[in-house]
Amino acid sequence: MLALVMVMLLGLSACQSPATVNELRGTGDLGLVIERASGSVLVVETTGNSVLGRVEGLGDLSHASVVYSRDGRYGYVFGRDGGLTKVDLLTRSITERVMQSGNSIGGAISQDGRYVAVSNYEPGGVKVFDSETLALVADVPATYTNAEGETAQSKTVGLVDAPGNQFVFSLFDAGEIWTLDMAADSHEITRYDAGDAPYDGLITPDGRYYIAGLFGEDGLSMLDLWEPQAGVTDILPGYGKGEQKLPVYKMPHLEGWAIADGRAFVPAVGHHQVLVADMNDWSLMDRIDVQGQPVFVMASPDNRQIWVSFAHPDNDVIQVIDARTRKIIHTLEPGKAVLHMEFTPRGERVWVSARDSNRVTVYDTRTLDPVATLSAENPSGIFFTSRAHSLGL
Amino acid sequence: MLALVMVMLLGLSACQSPATVNELRGTGDLGLVIERASGSVLVVETTGNSVLGRVEGLGDLSHASVVYSRDGRYGYVFGRDGGLTKVDLLTRSITERVMQSGNSIGGAISQDGRYVAVSNYEPGGVKVFDSETLALVADVPATYTNAEGETAQSKTVGLVDAPGNQFVFSLFDAGEIWTLDMAADSHEITRYDAGDAPYDGLITPDGRYYIAGLFGEDGLSMLDLWEPQAGVTDILPGYGKGEQKLPVYKMPHLEGWAIADGRAFVPAVGHHQVLVADMNDWSLMDRIDVQGQPVFVMASPDNRQIWVSFAHPDNDVIQVIDARTRKIIHTLEPGKAVLHMEFTPRGERVWVSARDSNRVTVYDTRTLDPVATLSAENPSGIFFTSRAHSLGL
Repeated sequence: MLALVMVMLLGLSACQSPATVNELRGTGDLGLVIERASGSVLVVETTGNSVLGRVEGLGDLSHASVVYSRDGRYGYVFGRDGGLTKVDLLTRSITERVMQSGNSIGGAISQDGRYVAVSNYEPGGVKVFDSETLALVADVPATYTNAEGETAQSKTVGLVDAPGNQFVFSLFDAGEIWTLDMAADSHEITRYDAGDAPYDGLITPDGRYYIAGLFGEDGLSMLDLWEPQAGVTDILPGYGKGEQKLPVYKMPHLEGWAIADGRAFVPAVGHHQVLVADMNDWSLMDRIDVQGQPVFVMASPDNRQIWVSFAHPDNDVIQVIDARTRKIIHTLEPGKAVLHMEFTPRGERVWVSARDSNRVTVYDTRTLDPVATLSAENPSGIFFTSRAHSLGL
Repeated sequence: MLALVMVMLLGLSACQSPATVNELRGTGDLGLVIERASGSVLVVETTGNSVLGRVEGLGDLSHASVVYSRDGRYGYVFGRDGGLTKVDLLTRSITERVMQSGNSIGGAISQDGRYVAVSNYEPGGVKVFDSETLALVADVPATYTNAEGETAQSKTVGLVDAPGNQFVFSLFDAGEIWTLDMAADSHEITRYDAGDAPYDGLITPDGRYYIAGLFGEDGLSMLDLWEPQAGVTDILPGYGKGEQKLPVYKMPHLEGWAIADGRAFVPAVGHHQVLVADMNDWSLMDRIDVQGQPVFVMASPDNRQIWVSFAHPDNDVIQVIDARTRKIIHTLEPGKAVLHMEFTPRGERVWVSARDSNRVTVYDTRTLDPVATLSAENPSGIFFTSRAHSLGL
C-alpha cells in the first residue's frame, strides 16, 4: 500500500499537475503544447487557461506537430526522430508509440479518422497507420528514378489530408505531387509533375487547392483537387529565392499561410514583408511591411486579424495586421524566441509560445491584452483539439 | 440494495442504451438528435454511427435547437415552450433546466462560452444565462413603441453569436436589428433600423454579415458587423413574397443558407428553386430548379455539394447539387417527412432525419450511399458537438 502511494506521488510530481487524471470531462477545449527540448507535451485546457498535466517520453520533438482523433481524445504526435506517439489527453498518458522511420517531418489524419499518415525524410516515403492501434496499413516508398538512373526513395513533405479520404504530399527529390486514395482498399496513387524540390505544402481550408513551396525555383506548384486531371499549375511566379534580398534565416512554413476572405496572406521569402495574393487568379495584390522575415502568418477565425511571427533575429515580437486595412495595428512582445501561435476555435483568444522564456502567453484578441501566462519548458507548437474538425489540419 | 438495482434497471430500460454511462471518452464525435414528439433527445456518436442513449423530460421540442459548451460536453437545448435545458452528453442526463419564458425560438452561446442567450416570442425579448449554472445574467426586454404609441416588448428572432462576444438578433415587431455586447459588464445594446417584420436571421461563417429575412416586405436586411456604423442595407431586393408564385408551405429557414466559395445558396420563397447570390455585391447569379420548395440548403464542409430538403408535400426527398456545375447530381429518398440534415465536421458523412419514418439515415458523401440507419422517435434537428468550435452555430 505504501508502495502504491509512493508510485502515485512520484507519478504526480514527475508528470502531472494536481488536476485529476481520469476525470470525466469534455475534450473540446483541450490541447497539447510541444516542449521540444525535453521530449514532452503539456496537456492544456483553454476555458480556464491552465495546464492539466505533462506527458513525457516522446523522443525528439524539434519540429513536432500533432493531429487529433475525430473524438478529440487522442493526439498523434509526429516527432523528428521518426517516432509516432498516440497520447490520451484524458488519462494524460501514452497509449501507443512506434518508431516508424529514421527521420520524419509531420503527418496527417484521414477525413474519416481511420488512418494516420507520416511523411518521412529517412528513408523517404509515407507510412500509413491504423489510428486505433498504430498498426501499419500502407507503406508508400515514394520511389523515383534519380539522376544516375537508379530507383531511389524520395523525401516526402507537405503531407495533408483531403476530402474523399485522400492524403496529398510532395516528393522533394522527385519534384512531384502525389495523391493517395484511402477510400478504396487498393490505396490508389496518382502522380503529378510539380516544380523543382518542393519543401513544404498546404491545403486550403475547403480542401480544394494543394500548394507546394519550391526550394529549387521561384513560384509555387498548385494542384486543384476539384480538377486534378488539369495537373499542376505554377502560381505566384516571382515568389521564392529569386526575390531574395536578405539572407534567409528560415524558410517560411506553408502551414503558416493565412487564407482569409478570398486572399492569401503569405510570408515573403527573405523580405521583411507579408504578401497578399488574390486567390481568384493568384496575382499579387499588396505587400505589407513588417518588422522581420515572417515565418508564421495566421488569420484569426473571424478573418479580421493576421498574426505574424518572425525568424531570428526578430523573433521576440508578434505583429498583428488588420486584414481589411492591411495595416499593423499592434506589436506584441511575448518573450524570447517566439514562433508558434494557436487561436481558440472561435477566436476569442490566441496562445503564443516563447521558447526561450519558458512560457506560453494567452492574449485576448479583442483587447490584445495578455490574460494568462503558463509555464512550459521551451514550448514550441500549440495544437488544440478543434483541429479534429477541420480539413487539412 | 434490491431497490438500487431496480432503479438502475429502470433507468436503463427507460433512458439508456447498453453503452456505458460515465465512461471516459472524447466528446468531439458526439451529438444530439431532437425527438420532437416525445420531448427527448438521443445522444449519438459519429465514429461508429450509433445511439449511446436517450435523455427525456425536455418539454416541447418542436422547432428545438442546440448549442454546445466550448468543451463539447454540454448541449443547451432550446425548447419551443420556453424551456432551456442543459444536457450532459457524457452522463446522458439533465444538469440544469429553467423555464425562462412562455414561448421561445432558439438561442446562441457567446464566443467565449460563458453566456447562453435565448430568443423569446412570449413575452418577447432576450434573456442571457450563465452557461455554467443557468442563472440569469441579463434580461433584455426588447421594448419598442407600437402603433398605438405604447411601449411593448417585441418578439425576437434570428439570435446568433458574433465575434467580440456579441449577440445579434432581430425584433419582429419593431423592424430592428440589435447587437448586445457581452464583453463589458455594461451589456451595451446598439439598435439598427431594419426592414419590416424580420422573421429569421443568420450570420456568415466568419461572423461578419448578419442577414435577416423579412416577412413584411421583399428583400433582406444585412448588417456588416465590420462596419456597423454604416447601418443596415437592403440586399436581394426581389427576394421574398413578392416573387411568390405558389402557396408558401413553410417559410425557409435562414440558418439553412449555404455559404460556399463566395456564393450564397438560398432557398427561394414559394418557388421550386435554389437561388445563387454573389456575395461580393449580393446580385442574383443563378436559379437552380429543384423538386419542391426548399427549406434547408446546406453546403458540405468542402463546399463541393449543396444538400437541399423540401417543404410539404415534397418532403420525402433530398436533392444533392454539385456546387460548381450547379446541377442536381442525385435525389435521395431517406423516408417520410425529411427536413433536417447535419454534416460530420470534415464532411465524410451526412446524417438525415426522416421524422415520420422514425429513423435517421447516415450517408457517405462520396458515394451517396446510406452507410447506417438509426431508430429514433420522430427525429428532427441533428446537432453535432463540432458546432462548439464554429462562430454563429
